[in-house]
Amino acid sequence: MKNNRRAILYIAMSLDGYIAAPGDDLGFLDPMQREGEDYGYGHFIQSVDTVITGRRTHDWVMRHAPDFAHADKACYILTRNPKPNTGSTRFYTGDPAELIRHLKSLPGKDLFIEGGSEILHELLKQQLIDEFILSIVPVLVGDGIPLFREGRPPQTLELVDVTRFDSGLVQLRYLGL
Amino acid sequence: MKNNRRAILYIAMSLDGYIAAPGDDLGFLDPMQREGEDYGYGHFIQSVDTVITGRRTHDWVMRHAPDFAHADKACYILTRNPKPNTGSTRFYTGDPAELIRHLKSLPGKDLFIEGGSEILHELLKQQLIDEFILSIVPVLVGDGIPLFREGRPPQTLELVDVTRFDSGLVQLRYLGL
Repeated sequence: MKNNRRAILYIAMSLDGYIAAPGDDLGFLDPMQREGEDYGYGHFIQSVDTVITGRRTHDWVMRHAPDFAHADKACYILTRNPKPNTGSTRFYTGDPAELIRHLKSLPGKDLFIEGGSEILHELLKQQLIDEFILSIVPVLVGDGIPLFREGRPPQTLELVDVTRFDSGLVQLRYLGL
Repeated sequence: MKNNRRAILYIAMSLDGYIAAPGDDLGFLDPMQREGEDYGYGHFIQSVDTVITGRRTHDWVMRHAPDFAHADKACYILTRNPKPNTGSTRFYTGDPAELIRHLKSLPGKDLFIEGGSEILHELLKQQLIDEFILSIVPVLVGDGIPLFREGRPPQTLELVDVTRFDSGLVQLRYLGL
Protein backbone atom coordinates (compact mmCIF):
# COMPACT_ATOMS: atom_id res chain seq x y z
CA MET A 1 0.00 0.00 0.00
CA LYS A 2 1.22 3.46 -0.76
CA ASN A 3 -0.26 6.89 -1.00
CA ASN A 4 1.10 8.09 -4.32
CA ARG A 5 -0.69 5.75 -6.66
CA ARG A 6 0.13 6.28 -10.29
CA ALA A 7 -2.01 5.75 -13.38
CA ILE A 8 0.02 3.54 -15.72
CA LEU A 9 -0.70 2.83 -19.36
CA TYR A 10 0.68 -0.58 -20.35
CA ILE A 11 -0.11 -1.36 -23.97
CA ALA A 12 1.33 -2.63 -27.26
CA MET A 13 1.17 -0.70 -30.50
CA SER A 14 2.52 -1.17 -34.01
CA LEU A 15 5.32 1.16 -35.10
CA ASP A 16 2.69 3.19 -36.95
CA GLY A 17 0.69 3.65 -33.76
CA TYR A 18 -2.19 1.17 -33.98
CA ILE A 19 -3.46 -0.91 -31.07
CA ALA A 20 -5.69 -2.98 -33.37
CA ALA A 21 -6.20 -3.48 -37.09
CA PRO A 22 -9.67 -2.90 -38.58
CA GLY A 23 -12.32 -5.15 -37.02
CA ASP A 24 -10.52 -5.06 -33.64
CA ASP A 25 -8.02 -7.50 -35.14
CA LEU A 26 -5.06 -8.11 -32.79
CA GLY A 27 -3.34 -10.57 -35.10
CA PHE A 28 -0.31 -8.30 -35.41
CA LEU A 29 0.61 -9.33 -31.86
CA ASP A 30 0.78 -13.05 -32.70
CA PRO A 31 4.36 -13.06 -34.04
CA MET A 32 5.44 -11.60 -30.69
CA GLN A 33 4.37 -14.74 -28.79
CA ARG A 34 7.46 -16.42 -27.35
CA GLU A 35 7.51 -19.26 -24.88
CA GLY A 36 8.53 -17.91 -21.49
CA GLU A 37 8.45 -14.23 -22.56
CA ASP A 38 5.67 -12.08 -21.13
CA TYR A 39 7.38 -8.72 -21.81
CA GLY A 40 7.21 -7.82 -18.14
CA TYR A 41 3.43 -8.17 -17.92
CA GLY A 42 3.47 -10.56 -14.95
CA HIS A 43 5.67 -8.20 -12.98
CA PHE A 44 3.62 -5.18 -13.98
CA ILE A 45 0.23 -6.71 -13.19
CA GLN A 46 1.34 -7.46 -9.64
CA SER A 47 2.14 -3.79 -9.14
CA VAL A 48 -1.47 -2.72 -9.69
CA ASP A 49 -4.70 -3.47 -7.83
CA THR A 50 -7.13 -1.51 -9.97
CA VAL A 51 -7.87 -1.66 -13.70
CA ILE A 52 -9.57 1.08 -15.70
CA THR A 53 -10.95 -0.02 -19.04
CA GLY A 54 -13.20 1.45 -21.70
CA ARG A 55 -16.47 -0.32 -22.35
CA ARG A 56 -15.57 -1.37 -25.88
CA THR A 57 -12.30 -2.92 -24.74
CA HIS A 58 -14.06 -4.62 -21.83
CA ASP A 59 -16.62 -6.17 -24.16
CA TRP A 60 -13.84 -7.37 -26.45
CA VAL A 61 -11.95 -8.98 -23.56
CA MET A 62 -15.09 -10.71 -22.28
CA ARG A 63 -15.85 -12.07 -25.75
CA HIS A 64 -12.35 -13.10 -26.80
CA ALA A 65 -10.16 -13.54 -23.76
CA PRO A 66 -12.28 -13.77 -20.59
CA ASP A 67 -9.30 -15.34 -18.81
CA PHE A 68 -7.61 -11.98 -19.11
CA ALA A 69 -10.34 -10.36 -17.07
CA HIS A 70 -8.81 -9.17 -13.83
CA ALA A 71 -10.87 -11.08 -11.27
CA ASP A 72 -8.53 -10.21 -8.40
CA LYS A 73 -8.51 -6.47 -9.10
CA ALA A 74 -10.99 -3.66 -8.68
CA CYS A 75 -12.18 -3.06 -12.25
CA TYR A 76 -13.79 0.15 -13.44
CA ILE A 77 -15.44 0.00 -16.84
CA LEU A 78 -16.01 3.47 -18.24
CA THR A 79 -19.27 3.63 -20.17
CA ARG A 80 -22.05 5.98 -21.18
CA ASN A 81 -24.72 3.40 -20.32
CA PRO A 82 -25.14 2.42 -16.66
CA LYS A 83 -25.05 -1.32 -15.96
CA PRO A 84 -25.30 -3.20 -12.66
CA ASN A 85 -21.95 -3.96 -11.04
CA THR A 86 -20.84 -7.60 -10.99
CA GLY A 87 -18.32 -8.90 -8.45
CA SER A 88 -15.35 -6.55 -8.45
CA THR A 89 -16.42 -4.93 -11.75
CA ARG A 90 -18.03 -1.53 -11.55
CA PHE A 91 -19.58 0.30 -14.49
CA TYR A 92 -18.82 3.98 -14.21
CA THR A 93 -20.65 6.68 -16.15
CA GLY A 94 -19.06 9.75 -14.53
CA ASP A 95 -16.09 11.89 -15.48
CA PRO A 96 -12.98 9.71 -15.97
CA ALA A 97 -10.76 12.45 -14.56
CA GLU A 98 -12.77 12.50 -11.33
CA LEU A 99 -12.53 8.73 -11.01
CA ILE A 100 -8.75 8.79 -11.43
CA ARG A 101 -8.35 11.64 -8.97
CA HIS A 102 -10.58 9.85 -6.47
CA LEU A 103 -8.69 6.57 -6.78
CA LYS A 104 -5.35 8.35 -6.47
CA SER A 105 -6.53 9.95 -3.24
CA LEU A 106 -6.99 6.48 -1.70
CA PRO A 107 -4.14 4.25 -0.57
CA GLY A 108 -3.40 1.25 -2.76
CA LYS A 109 -1.23 -0.13 -5.51
CA ASP A 110 -0.92 1.58 -8.90
CA LEU A 111 -3.75 1.90 -11.42
CA PHE A 112 -3.62 0.00 -14.73
CA ILE A 113 -5.03 2.05 -17.58
CA GLU A 114 -5.90 -0.75 -20.00
CA GLY A 115 -7.38 1.24 -22.88
CA GLY A 116 -8.83 1.47 -25.40
CA SER A 117 -8.45 4.41 -27.67
CA GLU A 118 -11.47 6.45 -26.59
CA ILE A 119 -10.84 6.41 -22.86
CA LEU A 120 -7.12 7.00 -23.41
CA HIS A 121 -7.96 10.07 -25.43
CA GLU A 122 -9.97 11.46 -22.52
CA LEU A 123 -7.24 10.73 -19.99
CA LEU A 124 -4.46 12.07 -22.22
CA LYS A 125 -6.38 15.26 -22.89
CA GLN A 126 -6.35 15.85 -19.14
CA GLN A 127 -2.77 14.60 -18.70
CA LEU A 128 -3.89 12.04 -16.12
CA ILE A 129 -1.47 9.29 -17.14
CA ASP A 130 1.63 9.22 -14.95
CA GLU A 131 3.58 6.47 -16.67
CA PHE A 132 3.61 4.99 -20.16
CA ILE A 133 4.87 1.46 -20.81
CA LEU A 134 4.60 1.11 -24.58
CA SER A 135 5.60 -2.02 -26.43
CA ILE A 136 6.45 -1.19 -30.04
CA VAL A 137 5.70 -4.16 -32.30
CA PRO A 138 7.85 -4.31 -35.47
CA VAL A 139 5.09 -4.01 -38.02
CA LEU A 140 3.19 -1.32 -39.91
CA VAL A 141 -0.45 -2.24 -39.43
CA GLY A 142 -1.53 0.43 -41.90
CA ASP A 143 -5.04 1.09 -40.61
CA GLY A 144 -7.24 0.50 -37.59
CA ILE A 145 -7.56 1.87 -34.08
CA PRO A 146 -4.83 4.39 -33.21
CA LEU A 147 -3.38 4.56 -29.71
CA PHE A 148 -3.12 8.35 -29.88
CA ARG A 149 -5.95 10.35 -31.40
CA GLU A 150 -5.36 13.87 -32.61
CA GLY A 151 -6.53 16.89 -30.66
CA ARG A 152 -4.68 16.76 -27.34
CA PRO A 153 -2.52 19.34 -25.61
CA PRO A 154 1.25 18.68 -25.81
CA GLN A 155 2.80 16.74 -22.93
CA THR A 156 6.51 16.41 -22.18
CA LEU A 157 7.71 12.93 -21.25
CA GLU A 158 10.78 11.62 -19.48
CA LEU A 159 12.31 8.46 -20.89
CA VAL A 160 13.13 6.08 -18.03
CA ASP A 161 13.76 2.75 -19.72
CA VAL A 162 14.28 1.04 -23.08
CA THR A 163 14.18 -2.75 -23.41
CA ARG A 164 14.84 -4.63 -26.62
CA PHE A 165 13.47 -8.16 -26.95
CA ASP A 166 14.56 -10.99 -29.28
CA SER A 167 11.23 -10.87 -31.08
CA GLY A 168 11.97 -7.35 -32.28
CA LEU A 169 9.60 -5.77 -29.79
CA VAL A 170 10.96 -2.64 -28.09
CA GLN A 171 9.46 -1.58 -24.79
CA LEU A 172 9.70 2.12 -23.97
CA ARG A 173 8.95 3.48 -20.53
CA TYR A 174 8.20 7.15 -19.95
CA LEU A 175 6.99 9.32 -17.10
CA GLY A 176 4.44 11.98 -17.92
CA LEU A 177 5.71 15.37 -16.76
CA MET B 1 29.18 2.79 -55.57
CA LYS B 2 27.03 -0.26 -55.21
CA ASN B 3 24.22 -1.82 -57.14
CA ASN B 4 21.72 -2.53 -54.40
CA ARG B 5 20.77 0.98 -53.42
CA ARG B 6 18.23 1.19 -50.65
CA ALA B 7 15.56 3.79 -49.97
CA ILE B 8 16.04 4.91 -46.36
CA LEU B 9 13.64 6.97 -44.29
CA TYR B 10 15.52 8.97 -41.65
CA ILE B 11 13.16 11.11 -39.62
CA ALA B 12 12.17 12.18 -36.10
CA MET B 13 8.69 11.83 -34.69
CA SER B 14 7.04 12.42 -31.34
CA LEU B 15 5.98 9.34 -29.37
CA ASP B 16 2.45 9.98 -30.62
CA GLY B 17 3.62 9.88 -34.22
CA TYR B 18 3.82 13.51 -35.35
CA ILE B 19 6.62 14.93 -37.50
CA ALA B 20 5.38 18.49 -36.94
CA ALA B 21 2.90 20.29 -34.73
CA PRO B 22 0.15 22.40 -36.36
CA GLY B 23 1.57 25.17 -38.55
CA ASP B 24 4.58 23.01 -39.50
CA ASP B 25 5.97 23.77 -36.06
CA LEU B 26 9.12 21.73 -35.33
CA GLY B 27 9.66 23.23 -31.88
CA PHE B 28 9.26 19.82 -30.25
CA LEU B 29 12.70 18.96 -31.60
CA ASP B 30 14.41 21.86 -29.82
CA PRO B 31 14.87 20.11 -26.44
CA MET B 32 16.77 17.37 -28.29
CA GLN B 33 19.56 19.77 -29.35
CA ARG B 34 22.77 18.72 -27.60
CA GLU B 35 26.24 20.06 -28.29
CA GLY B 36 28.17 17.42 -30.21
CA GLU B 37 25.19 15.08 -30.65
CA ASP B 38 23.84 14.71 -34.17
CA TYR B 39 22.00 11.41 -33.57
CA GLY B 40 23.95 9.72 -36.34
CA TYR B 41 22.86 12.20 -39.02
CA GLY B 42 26.38 13.03 -40.19
CA HIS B 43 27.20 9.38 -40.65
CA PHE B 44 23.89 8.69 -42.35
CA ILE B 45 24.05 11.62 -44.75
CA GLN B 46 27.41 10.42 -46.04
CA SER B 47 25.86 7.08 -46.93
CA VAL B 48 23.42 8.64 -49.42
CA ASP B 49 23.92 10.57 -52.65
CA THR B 50 20.30 11.21 -53.56
CA VAL B 51 17.51 12.90 -51.62
CA ILE B 52 13.80 12.49 -52.32
CA THR B 53 11.59 15.14 -50.80
CA GLY B 54 7.97 16.22 -51.08
CA ARG B 55 7.32 19.68 -52.44
CA ARG B 56 5.82 20.99 -49.19
CA THR B 57 8.81 19.83 -47.17
CA HIS B 58 11.21 21.25 -49.77
CA ASP B 59 9.50 24.65 -49.59
CA TRP B 60 9.71 24.56 -45.79
CA VAL B 61 13.43 23.75 -45.86
CA MET B 62 14.15 26.51 -48.38
CA ARG B 63 12.24 29.03 -46.26
CA HIS B 64 13.48 28.02 -42.81
CA ALA B 65 16.74 26.11 -43.13
CA PRO B 66 18.25 26.60 -46.59
CA ASP B 67 21.61 25.43 -45.19
CA PHE B 68 20.01 22.01 -44.82
CA ALA B 69 19.41 21.83 -48.56
CA HIS B 70 21.56 19.06 -49.92
CA ALA B 71 23.68 20.94 -52.45
CA ASP B 72 26.07 18.02 -52.92
CA LYS B 73 23.35 15.44 -53.59
CA ALA B 74 21.00 14.74 -56.44
CA CYS B 75 17.67 16.07 -55.14
CA TYR B 76 14.30 15.03 -56.46
CA ILE B 77 11.36 17.17 -55.38
CA LEU B 78 8.08 15.36 -55.91
CA THR B 79 5.39 17.78 -56.98
CA ARG B 80 2.20 18.02 -59.00
CA ASN B 81 3.29 21.28 -60.64
CA PRO B 82 6.28 21.12 -63.00
CA LYS B 83 9.06 23.64 -62.27
CA PRO B 84 12.38 24.16 -64.04
CA ASN B 85 15.27 22.24 -62.49
CA THR B 86 17.92 24.26 -60.65
CA GLY B 87 21.46 22.94 -60.16
CA SER B 88 21.21 19.42 -58.77
CA THR B 89 17.51 19.86 -57.86
CA ARG B 90 14.97 18.24 -60.16
CA PHE B 91 11.22 18.71 -59.87
CA TYR B 92 9.51 15.43 -60.65
CA THR B 93 5.82 15.12 -61.48
CA GLY B 94 5.71 11.41 -62.35
CA ASP B 95 4.93 8.33 -60.30
CA PRO B 96 7.11 8.22 -57.14
CA ALA B 97 7.32 4.43 -57.35
CA GLU B 98 8.75 4.63 -60.85
CA LEU B 99 11.34 7.19 -59.76
CA ILE B 100 12.48 5.00 -56.86
CA ARG B 101 12.66 1.91 -59.03
CA HIS B 102 14.61 3.82 -61.69
CA LEU B 103 17.10 5.21 -59.16
CA LYS B 104 17.54 1.79 -57.58
CA SER B 105 18.37 0.33 -60.99
CA LEU B 106 21.35 2.71 -61.25
CA PRO B 107 24.59 2.31 -59.31
CA GLY B 108 25.15 4.76 -56.46
CA LYS B 109 24.89 5.31 -52.74
CA ASP B 110 21.61 4.87 -50.86
CA LEU B 111 18.55 7.10 -51.29
CA PHE B 112 17.44 9.42 -48.47
CA ILE B 113 13.66 9.62 -48.22
CA GLU B 114 13.32 12.94 -46.41
CA GLY B 115 9.54 13.26 -46.20
CA GLY B 116 7.07 14.67 -45.62
CA SER B 117 3.87 12.95 -44.80
CA GLU B 118 2.22 12.93 -48.23
CA ILE B 119 5.11 11.46 -50.19
CA LEU B 120 5.81 8.96 -47.41
CA HIS B 121 2.24 7.80 -47.62
CA GLU B 122 2.64 7.08 -51.32
CA LEU B 123 5.93 5.23 -50.83
CA LEU B 124 4.63 3.24 -47.85
CA LYS B 125 1.50 2.24 -49.72
CA GLN B 126 3.78 0.65 -52.31
CA GLN B 127 6.23 -0.69 -49.72
CA LEU B 128 9.13 1.09 -51.39
CA ILE B 129 11.01 1.98 -48.20
CA ASP B 130 13.79 -0.48 -47.45
CA GLU B 131 15.00 0.88 -44.15
CA PHE B 132 13.46 3.02 -41.42
CA ILE B 133 15.61 5.07 -39.04
CA LEU B 134 13.09 6.63 -36.68
CA SER B 135 14.05 8.91 -33.83
CA ILE B 136 11.36 8.88 -31.16
CA VAL B 137 11.27 12.20 -29.32
CA PRO B 138 9.98 11.98 -25.71
CA VAL B 139 6.95 14.19 -26.07
CA LEU B 140 3.28 13.91 -26.99
CA VAL B 141 2.76 16.64 -29.56
CA GLY B 142 -1.00 16.05 -29.54
CA ASP B 143 -1.85 17.28 -33.02
CA GLY B 144 -0.26 18.12 -36.35
CA ILE B 145 1.25 16.23 -39.25
CA PRO B 146 1.41 12.47 -38.66
CA LEU B 147 4.32 10.42 -39.97
CA PHE B 148 2.03 7.51 -40.82
CA ARG B 149 -1.34 8.20 -42.42
CA GLU B 150 -4.06 5.59 -42.31
CA GLY B 151 -4.97 3.47 -45.29
CA ARG B 152 -1.85 1.47 -46.12
CA PRO B 153 -1.34 -2.27 -46.50
CA PRO B 154 0.36 -3.99 -43.54
CA GLN B 155 4.15 -4.36 -43.73
CA THR B 156 6.31 -6.56 -41.53
CA LEU B 157 9.52 -4.99 -40.24
CA GLU B 158 12.72 -6.41 -38.84
CA LEU B 159 14.25 -4.55 -35.91
CA VAL B 160 17.97 -4.14 -36.46
CA ASP B 161 19.04 -1.55 -33.91
CA VAL B 162 17.93 0.43 -30.88
CA THR B 163 19.93 3.38 -29.58
CA ARG B 164 19.08 5.35 -26.48
CA PHE B 165 20.43 8.88 -26.15
CA ASP B 166 20.93 11.02 -23.01
CA SER B 167 18.32 13.49 -24.23
CA GLY B 168 15.64 10.79 -23.98
CA LEU B 169 15.51 10.30 -27.74
CA VAL B 170 15.34 6.65 -28.82
CA GLN B 171 16.43 5.77 -32.33
CA LEU B 172 14.88 2.63 -33.82
CA ARG B 173 16.19 1.03 -36.99
CA TYR B 174 14.08 -1.42 -39.00
CA LEU B 175 14.31 -3.14 -42.34
CA GLY B 176 11.14 -3.32 -44.41
CA LEU B 177 10.41 -6.95 -45.27
